[in-house]
Amino acid sequence: MSAAGTLFVVSAPSGAGKTSLVRALVERTEGLVLSVSHTTRPPRPGEVDGVHYHFVDEAAFLRMVEAGAFLEHAEVFGNRYGTARETVERELRAGRDVLLEIDWQGARQVRAAMPAAVGVFILPPSREELERRLRGRGQDSEEVIARRMAAAEAELSHYAEYDYLVVNDAFAQALDDLSAIVRCHRLRTARQRRALAGLLAGLVTGGASAC
Amino acid sequence: MSAAGTLFVVSAPSGAGKTSLVRALVERTEGLVLSVSHTTRPPRPGEVDGVHYHFVDEAAFLRMVEAGAFLEHAEVFGNRYGTARETVERELRAGRDVLLEIDWQGARQVRAAMPAAVGVFILPPSREELERRLRGRGQDSEEVIARRMAAAEAELSHYAEYDYLVVNDAFAQALDDLSAIVRCHRLRTARQRRALAGLLAGLVTGGASAC
Repeated sequence: MSAAGTLFVVSAPSGAGKTSLVRALVERTEGLVLSVSHTTRPPRPGEVDGVHYHFVDEAAFLRMVEAGAFLEHAEVFGNRYGTARETVERELRAGRDVLLEIDWQGARQVRAAMPAAVGVFILPPSREELERRLRGRGQDSEEVIARRMAAAEAELSHYAEYDYLVVNDAFAQALDDLSAIVRCHRLRTARQRRALAGLLAGLVTGGASAC
Repeated sequence: MSAAGTLFVVSAPSGAGKTSLVRALVERTEGLVLSVSHTTRPPRPGEVDGVHYHFVDEAAFLRMVEAGAFLEHAEVFGNRYGTARETVERELRAGRDVLLEIDWQGARQVRAAMPAAVGVFILPPSREELERRLRGRGQDSEEVIARRMAAAEAELSHYAEYDYLVVNDAFAQALDDLSAIVRCHRLRTARQRRALAGLLAGLVTGGASAC
């Protein structure tokens, strides 16, 4: 039986505006939640356990890895981050859509574990604009910027592994694109058969089978 | 190479409001066109050849059938109707989306000929509402109404063969659902790779291949 909700995996190079888009999308979409990751990094001021992250220590994280509890996990600058399978599946079973904001390596792990996941890749509107955004306020060395650009290019090289490509040129339009993807997937027959089970039973009587 | 446009096939039992929805959708969606069918029935007052239908005689229609020129065709009350493959493919090649408004039998023929076609089935909001709509102005015999209801049920029994189910309860909402489906399919990576070929070439340099 397919899950009631849909899992969306959103990736992008930094500088594409992914985080703002995803935040706005979740805010305006009922029944769509951001997955809360587990991490070994210490909470920053204002961060709440279970809301921004599930904060766990290294030993607990590694036990979860060994138990196969993560859909995906990675180490970034010495801290570990992961998406617990149970966190995601609980939401999906409850009929909510779940959004994961992860990089291409995480997306690949998720796709392997949950092939029904829907992948969305967000693109910057041009190479010039991407560079401009990565330069930021002009306080970084050329070396730092070149490293950022190389990382962005590495991420970009994986766009073809995703189901949808959204260009973040005009923010409102990109947001509407993301909304259309979510709305469209809610209309898929496999999902509607559950959501509309009562209606369909009333409309298709006598057990008339399609053939 | 996949076509530049997407073919949408929309079916519904009569009484579901398909025709009004489809008309409104095409009116507000740039780059989405209704396919113009071929028919052997004589033009009605005001109907323009090549706009409302391609009007052809029986012999011409049958020659097209023999030549395999139709994606789907059917006979209804002694008149023949068909969708010419070339009409559809010309639009798709030009990057336009094409919408076919046909019944489940036609949809099945189209799916066999063009597996990339996207099927949408429109449902009435309830059995009671469907009956009310099929009763119309109350001038028809119970027998006529029963026949209409049976035809509607036969069409309804095929909903599961479609990719999407849209309920036409509130018209505006059903129209937004259809718009979301069209918009979403335009964002699919296979299509975007063509539409964004220039952007992608600029962003992904050095022939970096995903792996």
